[in-house]
Amino acid sequence: MSKIKVAAFSVSMDGFGAGPRQSLEDPLGIRGEELHTWMFQKTDGNSGTGVDNNIVQKSMENIGAWIMGRNMFGPVRGPWPDDEWKGWWGEKPPYHVPVFVLTHHARESFEMKGGTTFHFVTGGIESALEEAKKVANGKDIRIGGGVSTIHQFLRAGYIDEMQLTFSPVFFGSGEHLFSGIDIPALGFNQVEKINGENATHIILKR
Amino acid sequence: MSKIKVAAFSVSMDGFGAGPRQSLEDPLGIRGEELHTWMFQKTDGNSGTGVDNNIVQKSMENIGAWIMGRNMFGPVRGPWPDDEWKGWWGEKPPYHVPVFVLTHHARESFEMKGGTTFHFVTGGIESALEEAKKVANGKDIRIGGGVSTIHQFLRAGYIDEMQLTFSPVFFGSGEHLFSGIDIPALGFNQVEKINGENATHIILKR
Repeated sequence: MSKIKVAAFSVSMDGFGAGPRQSLEDPLGIRGEELHTWMFQKTDGNSGTGVDNNIVQKSMENIGAWIMGRNMFGPVRGPWPDDEWKGWWGEKPPYHVPVFVLTHHARESFEMKGGTTFHFVTGGIESALEEAKKVANGKDIRIGGGVSTIHQFLRAGYIDEMQLTFSPVFFGSGEHLFSGIDIPALGFNQVEKINGENATHIILKR
Repeated sequence: MSKIKVAAFSVSMDGFGAGPRQSLEDPLGIRGEELHTWMFQKTDGNSGTGVDNNIVQKSMENIGAWIMGRNMFGPVRGPWPDDEWKGWWGEKPPYHVPVFVLTHHARESFEMKGGTTFHFVTGGIESALEEAKKVANGKDIRIGGGVSTIHQFLRAGYIDEMQLTFSPVFFGSGEHLFSGIDIPALGFNQVEKINGENATHIILKR
């Protein structure tokens, strides 16, 4: 069965999933990149193994489709002026499966190298889920982010599992993952902690 | 020099320093005790050693005085009906130094076994600090809690160091430590992480 999950989603210790003022220079807002430092550290010499690295690797396994908010896809706001913006990730994005981008503004799908196809969904999260399930082939559907997209899926009760990564940074402002979100009330009552070298990983299940 | 610090203060992963609805039965609010499970686990067999235990032990060292809010001292609200309530901790509280309790209602000081004396301060945090410094003998002054007391000291810029302990639980409601508090803006820009067996310890310094 296709699970719907959040994985390796990084937050600051004070709960922010992005810093303030997202822009072309700061895709995750001011200081946002500090949330992901843990992902890019070789935690066992140069071998690329270690707890943190394993979390990243596992988060990419068995994913049949991604769903993400428009801000995670790019800095363009309002109607698409043209088809120039193709994501933050260069010509070979790290997804390798269909990615459904939530937007209010229609745009043609396009394919990138490595098997990533971006689709644009204007019908909201239900419509994105439906599309994603069609192509996921029974594999999991990963909700990428950002915070407001995760909020929508959480509040609608669609998320089966969340793996959050707490980075040892404090932001003080930005997009707060837990604001207005009551994790136990949403049914996530199983909490597992995994100590990483550079971050603390929490797995939430219902 | 006397440092003013918060130490081993436990919060949930979603930032709550206490659960909702504090009462005689739930001194830390509903489920509040789960924040402190890490303190009471023997983390290295039965030896009482281990990372978490060391954090507790270190948090008690070199403390010359404590300051705490009235709710941390007890469930009584409004004027003291009598002198019956003497704290949550039995006849030998774990402080062993003077403890200054912030309250709007005057009460006589009294001494407990083991060297703990409770004083009641009606003049606010500045007055409590002044009294604490007089008796701390150059040792540190520990701000015990709860959340609203820590907020007052943080906003006034008095806290030199904070060691927070993140317990792998989610509360969804209660008293939020980071709500309205911008840690970096308050000057805490050094963040150290210590992986404990049952919790994650974060040390914040300016």
